[in-house]
Amino acid sequence: MRKLKLAMIGGGPGAFIGAVHRIAARMDNLYDIVAGSFSSSAEKSKITAKELGISPDRAYATYQDLINKEKQLPEDVRVDVVCIVTPNHLHFEPAKLALENGFHVILDKPITLALSEAKELKKLQKESGKELLLTHTYTGYPMVKEAKQQIASGALGKIRKVYVEYPQGWLSNAVESKQADWRTDPSKSGIAGAMGDIGTHAFNLAEYVSGLEVNKLCADINTVVPNRRLDDDGAVLLRFNNGASGVLMATQIAAGEENKVKIRAYGEKGGLEWHQEDANSLMMKWLDAPAQIFRTGGSYVSSFASHNTRTPAGHPEGYLEAFANLYRNFALTVLLKKEGKEVPKEYLDFPGVEEGIRGMAFIETVIASGKSDEKWVELTI
Amino acid sequence: MRKLKLAMIGGGPGAFIGAVHRIAARMDNLYDIVAGSFSSSAEKSKITAKELGISPDRAYATYQDLINKEKQLPEDVRVDVVCIVTPNHLHFEPAKLALENGFHVILDKPITLALSEAKELKKLQKESGKELLLTHTYTGYPMVKEAKQQIASGALGKIRKVYVEYPQGWLSNAVESKQADWRTDPSKSGIAGAMGDIGTHAFNLAEYVSGLEVNKLCADINTVVPNRRLDDDGAVLLRFNNGASGVLMATQIAAGEENKVKIRAYGEKGGLEWHQEDANSLMMKWLDAPAQIFRTGGSYVSSFASHNTRTPAGHPEGYLEAFANLYRNFALTVLLKKEGKEVPKEYLDFPGVEEGIRGMAFIETVIASGKSDEKWVELTI
Amino acid sequence: MRKLKLAMIGGGPGAFIGAVHRIAARMDNLYDIVAGSFSSSAEKSKITAKELGISPDRAYATYQDLINKEKQLPEDVRVDVVCIVTPNHLHFEPAKLALENGFHVILDKPITLALSEAKELKKLQKESGKELLLTHTYTGYPMVKEAKQQIASGALGKIRKVYVEYPQGWLSNAVESKQADWRTDPSKSGIAGAMGDIGTHAFNLAEYVSGLEVNKLCADINTVVPNRRLDDDGAVLLRFNNGASGVLMATQIAAGEENKVKIRAYGEKGGLEWHQEDANSLMMKWLDAPAQIFRTGGSYVSSFASHNTRTPAGHPEGYLEAFANLYRNFALTVLLKKEGKEVPKEYLDFPGVEEGIRGMAFIETVIASGKSDEKWVELTI
Amino acid sequence: MRKLKLAMIGGGPGAFIGAVHRIAARMDNLYDIVAGSFSSSAEKSKITAKELGISPDRAYATYQDLINKEKQLPEDVRVDVVCIVTPNHLHFEPAKLALENGFHVILDKPITLALSEAKELKKLQKESGKELLLTHTYTGYPMVKEAKQQIASGALGKIRKVYVEYPQGWLSNAVESKQADWRTDPSKSGIAGAMGDIGTHAFNLAEYVSGLEVNKLCADINTVVPNRRLDDDGAVLLRFNNGASGVLMATQIAAGEENKVKIRAYGEKGGLEWHQEDANSLMMKWLDAPAQIFRTGGSYVSSFASHNTRTPAGHPEGYLEAFANLYRNFALTVLLKKEGKEVPKEYLDFPGVEEGIRGMAFIETVIASGKSDEKWVELTI
Repeated sequence: MRKLKLAMIGGGPGAFIGAVHRIAARMDNLYDIVAGSFSSSAEKSKITAKELGISPDRAYATYQDLINKEKQLPEDVRVDVVCIVTPNHLHFEPAKLALENGFHVILDKPITLALSEAKELKKLQKESGKELLLTHTYTGYPMVKEAKQQIASGALGKIRKVYVEYPQGWLSNAVESKQADWRTDPSKSGIAGAMGDIGTHAFNLAEYVSGLEVNKLCADINTVVPNRRLDDDGAVLLRFNNGASGVLMATQIAAGEENKVKIRAYGEKGGLEWHQEDANSLMMKWLDAPAQIFRTGGSYVSSFASHNTRTPAGHPEGYLEAFANLYRNFALTVLLKKEGKEVPKEYLDFPGVEEGIRGMAFIETVIASGKSDEKWVELTI
Repeated sequence: MRKLKLAMIGGGPGAFIGAVHRIAARMDNLYDIVAGSFSSSAEKSKITAKELGISPDRAYATYQDLINKEKQLPEDVRVDVVCIVTPNHLHFEPAKLALENGFHVILDKPITLALSEAKELKKLQKESGKELLLTHTYTGYPMVKEAKQQIASGALGKIRKVYVEYPQGWLSNAVESKQADWRTDPSKSGIAGAMGDIGTHAFNLAEYVSGLEVNKLCADINTVVPNRRLDDDGAVLLRFNNGASGVLMATQIAAGEENKVKIRAYGEKGGLEWHQEDANSLMMKWLDAPAQIFRTGGSYVSSFASHNTRTPAGHPEGYLEAFANLYRNFALTVLLKKEGKEVPKEYLDFPGVEEGIRGMAFIETVIASGKSDEKWVELTI
Repeated sequence: MRKLKLAMIGGGPGAFIGAVHRIAARMDNLYDIVAGSFSSSAEKSKITAKELGISPDRAYATYQDLINKEKQLPEDVRVDVVCIVTPNHLHFEPAKLALENGFHVILDKPITLALSEAKELKKLQKESGKELLLTHTYTGYPMVKEAKQQIASGALGKIRKVYVEYPQGWLSNAVESKQADWRTDPSKSGIAGAMGDIGTHAFNLAEYVSGLEVNKLCADINTVVPNRRLDDDGAVLLRFNNGASGVLMATQIAAGEENKVKIRAYGEKGGLEWHQEDANSLMMKWLDAPAQIFRTGGSYVSSFASHNTRTPAGHPEGYLEAFANLYRNFALTVLLKKEGKEVPKEYLDFPGVEEGIRGMAFIETVIASGKSDEKWVELTI
Repeated sequence: MRKLKLAMIGGGPGAFIGAVHRIAARMDNLYDIVAGSFSSSAEKSKITAKELGISPDRAYATYQDLINKEKQLPEDVRVDVVCIVTPNHLHFEPAKLALENGFHVILDKPITLALSEAKELKKLQKESGKELLLTHTYTGYPMVKEAKQQIASGALGKIRKVYVEYPQGWLSNAVESKQADWRTDPSKSGIAGAMGDIGTHAFNLAEYVSGLEVNKLCADINTVVPNRRLDDDGAVLLRFNNGASGVLMATQIAAGEENKVKIRAYGEKGGLEWHQEDANSLMMKWLDAPAQIFRTGGSYVSSFASHNTRTPAGHPEGYLEAFANLYRNFALTVLLKKEGKEVPKEYLDFPGVEEGIRGMAFIETVIASGKSDEKWVELTI
C-alpha cells in the first residue's frame, strides 16, 4: 500500500487546528504520522508524541532538528511530508527549511507573515520540485468544487457579482486567550487579525469558485473590541479582473454567529449559493426556471465533486471530510508523481503556493486600504 | 363605523403597486376607495374607476381636478386621504397640492425626485397638520417590528454591525419594459435606479431596525446591463451615528433571486436576523446560549408585533399584510387624532416624511459617492 | 363592477374564523358584506354589524330571519351568498335553509355534524342550482395547486405513497376555553375533535393533491389531555384507490408546534413536498436529478398556480391570500355562471359539497376505526 | 498510547459499510486494523488486506481461520476486537465464535437474522465478559445525544407523542444489484427488507431519544416494486410503555429522497426535532416561549453532546463523525475496563446487545403485524 510518512511541526496539547490536521491525515489511510516537533517545549512535544504513538526518538525538540535528522534517515524510513501548524510567524522558516531539504510541505493559512516571504516560498518550491499544500479548507467541500465547475462550465454565463461572507462571533468580547491568543498578537499573527484568520479564507473561496481574480478593493477595517491590537471586523468592496464587482464581509464580532461561511455568485443566466451550515447542498438559481439543489453524492454532479465524496447522498459530510479532501488529493498527487504517472485534474485541485501568494497580497492590500482615504487600492502581486 | 375615504392618483391598468395599495386599503375595512385619477388618460382612468365600483363623477382626469373638486364636496362626502402611486417624478406636485388643500397623503417611496422637495413636503405637512404615510413596506412586518423592539430594549447591547441586503434578479437582462420602464428612465425615476427603487428600502430597514442613523458611506454603484441609463447594482459601506459599521447590498441583476430582503444586526450580547422569505420568523442569536426563533403570533412578542398580526401563530402573514399594516396604523392614527384621542405608540409606528427625507439623502449621497474617488462621503440632511 | 352581496351567519365578537372570512371576502373587491346574523345575541349581532358598517336593518337576530327577510328584498338589493361560520352543529340547518331559498352558500369545514346531513346538502344544492364553497383553506395556496397539477400531469408517475401531517400544540393543556370551547364539546363539534378540526383538512389536502381517494384506513385515535371530551390526537394508516398507501398525522397536543400543515407524495419518478411554513415553495424531487424549488409567482408554474397569485415572485403570500383565493374563485364562478358564460377550469377549482361529503365520511370512518380492533376499516360514502 | 487492534470480517472491494467502519476506526486513532477476512474469496481478501497495509499472514481466508489463529497469537499481538460487516445472515456465527474465544465484537445492525440468535448472543456476551458494539449510527450524533438528555432531564415533561421517519428513494426501481443485492434477498437479509435495513434504525432512534420502549404496534408493510422479494416500505403505529403513542415511517421507495432520518418527540411542556440533513441542530420547541436551536459545539449542551464533538461550533460534523463516536466510546470503554478504571457514563452510551435484541423483536413483530388482520400486536422479548 502506498502511504506518505508525515511529520508535524506544532499541534501540541490544546491546539485546535493540529488535531484537525491529524484527523484529516488519518481519514483516508494515506498518511502515517511518524515524527513531530509538536511544541516549543521539548517535554510537551514528547507527551504529544507518546499520545500519538510516535517513537520517542522521532519526537524532536525543534523543527530544525526534525528536518536535519529526518533527512539523514534512509528513504524508506524518513518522512515525506512536513506539516506546519504553528502560528503564522512560524510558517516561513520551517517551510523554507523543509523545501530546501527535499520535503513536501503542508501549511496552514495564511501562508506566511508577509507577501515577500510567500514569493520566496514559491521560488523555493519551484527549485525543489516538491509539492506544497495550503489548507484552505472550504475548497475541499464537494459542493464548493461543484460550484466552481458550474461556473467554469459557463452555466451561469459571465459572472457579474460575487458576495462572500464569513461571520464569526467568538471574539465579541475581549477574550484574548486560548485560541485567540496569538491570533490577536501582531508579532505572531502579522499585520492582520480577522482579515488574516478568516478574511483570507473568504477571499480564497471567492477567487476559487468564481475563477476570477480580485484586482482592486476598498476596505472598511475595524477593531471593535477595545484594546484589541488587530482588526476583528471588516467589509470590502471588490473588483474582479473581468469587471465583476463583489463584497467580502468577514467579522469575528458577530455575536451569536458560529462559523458561517457563505458564497453567492451571479452571472448573466443565473446564480449559485453555498453556505457551510448546509454544506452538502449547492443552490443553483435560474432566471426563468425553478432553482435546483445540487447535493453531495448526487448522480449528476461533476467528477470534481464525486471524487471528493466518501458516502452516498444523504450521509452528511462535514468540515473534517473537507479538510481530509485536501490531504487526500495532495497525497494522491505526490504518490502518482513519484511513480511518474499522470495526475488526474481532480487530484491536482488543491490550494498551494499561488493561493498563498494571493492571500498575502489580499492581507497587505486590505489593511492598506483600511488605512487609506482613497477609495480603490489595487491588489497586485 | 369609522372609515377613511380614499382617492388614488395613479394605479391604472397593469400597475403592480396600485393594486397592492388597494388590497392594503381594503384588508382591514378602514378605507373606502371613492375617487381617483388613475391614469394620465382620462379614458383609462374611467375604466379603472368602473372596475373598482367608483362613481364616474369621481373618476377625475387629472390630480389637480381631483384635489380641487373633492375639496369642494361636503366634509362627509369628500375624501380624507389622497394616495399617490405614480412614478417618482409625479410624487411631489400632487403631494404638495394635497397637503395644501387639507388632505392626508399616502405616498409610495422614494418620496420625491430630490431631497429638496422632500424637505419642502415636510414643511408643508407641518403647516397643514395632516398626516403623511410613506409606504416602506418592510417595516410593516410583525417580526421586523419585533426586531426593532428587541434592539430598542437593549437585548443585544450596543449595536456594532448591521448587514442589510436586497438582491433581485428581474433586471438581469435589458427588459426596459412594463414595470421596468419608468424605473430605468432618469426623467421619471430620478438620479438613481436600483438605489432608489430598492436601495432606499434597505436603507430604511437598516435605520428602522437598528434605531441608528447612517452618517457616512462609501458606495460602489454599477450599471451592469449595457445601455441601461441608471444604476442596477450597488454595494455600500456604512457608518452609523453610534460608531457601528455596516454594509448595504442592493442589486437588480442577481439573476435567479426574487425579492430577498434580509437584515442582520449584531450587538455586544447577540445578533438578530430577519429575511422576507421566512417573514414570520425572527432569529435571535446569543453569545453563549441557544439561538431563539421568535414567531409572528407568539405569546411572548412585543405589543408592536402583536398589534400588527391578524391570525394565530402558524398562519403565515405575508407581503400584503405587511403593507396593510401601514395602511391600518395610518388610518387608526388619523381617526383617533380626529377624535382628539391619544394615539397609542404602536399605531404611530409608521414611516412618514422624516423617513422620506432620509431616503432622499441616502439616494443623493450614495450616487455622489459612487462617482467619487474619496472613500467616505457624509450623509447630511 | 361585478360584486356579490354577502350575508354572514356567525362571526361575532372574538371569533377567529369569522374575521378571516371577512378579510378573504374583502381582499379582491368581489364581495360586499351587507347583512348578517353574527351572534345568537341580537345585541351582539348589532354591535358587529355596526363595526362592519352594515345597515342596522340588515343585522338580523336569527339566521331564519336573515334568510326569510333577505329573500323578500329586490334582487339588486338582497344578498347573493350566505356565509356560515358558526360552530359545526350550526352548519346544516342554515345551509339547508339558504339553499332552499335560492342563496349561494359558503361554509366552514367540516360541512356538517354527520355524513347523512352532508349528503342531504348535496341533494339540496343540486336541486337549487346554487353554488357551495367549503373553505378547505390549504387548497387555496398557489403551490398546493401546483402540486396537484404536477401530479395530474404525470410528472411523478403513478403515486405510491402520501404522507400528510398537521401538528398543532395549542390544546396541549386543558384550555377548554375561547377558540377551544366548542371544538372540544361533542354537542357542538360532533363525534370528532382534532380529527374534525384539522384531520379533515389533512385528509382533504391528501386527496386534493394526489388526485386519489382513500378507500380504507386504520386509525389510532387518542384523547391525551385528561378529561377532554373528544380526541385531540390521531395517526391514520391510509390506503388509496390506486393501491398507494399513506399516513395521516393530526394532533393538537404537539406542544410547541403552531399550525404546521405538510404534505409529501411520491411516485415512480420522483416526489413532492409542500409545507405551510414555507408556503410559497414547492419542492419537486427527482430520482436522478437535482431537486427543484417551484415558487409562487414563478414564470414556469401552471395556470392554476399563477391564477391564484397576486404579487410577483418573492413577495410572500400567506394564509389570508390562500383563503381569499377560495372566495375569489367562488365569486368568479358565480358571476360568470350568472352571465351564462363558460367558467375557466382554474376558477372552478374550489372545494364544495363533494369534498364535504368525503370529509364527513373520513370523520365517521376514522372515529369508528379508532374504536375498532380490526385493522382496516373501509371508507365508503 | 492505548489503542485497540481490530480485525474485520467482510468489507471487501466495493462494500459501502466496510469502508465507513474503517474510517470510523481510524478517525480518533484508537484502533489499528491489523487483520481481516474481507471476502469469501481468499484472493479478494488478500487484495483488500494489501490495500489496507495489513500483513499478508493476517489476511485470513475465513472468519473461523481468523478467530482460531489470532487466538493463538501473543496477547500483545493478537487482535482485541472483531468487527463484523457482512450481510445479516453472516452476523451470528462469527459473533458467537468471537465472543466464545474472548474477542470484543463490533457488529453492524440488525444484530442477527432472528431474535432467538440475538438472545443467544446476549447470553454469550455475558459469559464472555466482553463488550459488544452494535452500530446504530444515528445515536452517535451529538445532537441526538442532546435530545435524549433533554428528555431524560424532564425538560419536556412526560412524553406523549413520538414521530420517527426514515425515507429513502434508492429502491424506487427494481435495482436489485450492488448494495441492494443482499438487502432484498431473504436468505441473506432475513424476513425483513426495509424494516430491517432502516426500520430498525428508526425504531432504535425512537427508543433511544425518548427513553421509552415500544410495547405494541400496528404495521402497514408493503412491497411496492413488483417482483421484489422483501418489503420496501412500511408505516407503523406505535404504543410506548408510558402510554405515549407514535408513528414510525420507513420507506425505500420515496423517489427523490436520500437518507432523511428525522425524529420528533412531544411532551407536556414542549417538543424537540432533529433531522440528519441538519445534523448539528436540535430544535427545542416550547409551549409559550420561542423555540431554541441547540447546536453541536454550543457551550450550553450536555456532557454527552460535548464529549462526542471534535470541532468548535459551526464546523459541521457529519455521518462519519457520528459513526466514529460509536467506535470511540466503545474503545474508551474497553480500554478503561481493561485498566480496571471506572468508565464515565458518556463513554458507556453506545448501542449493544440489548438494542440488538429489541431491534430483532421489532423486526419480527412488525412483519407479523403487517400480515395480521388484528390491529395491535404486542412487542415482547
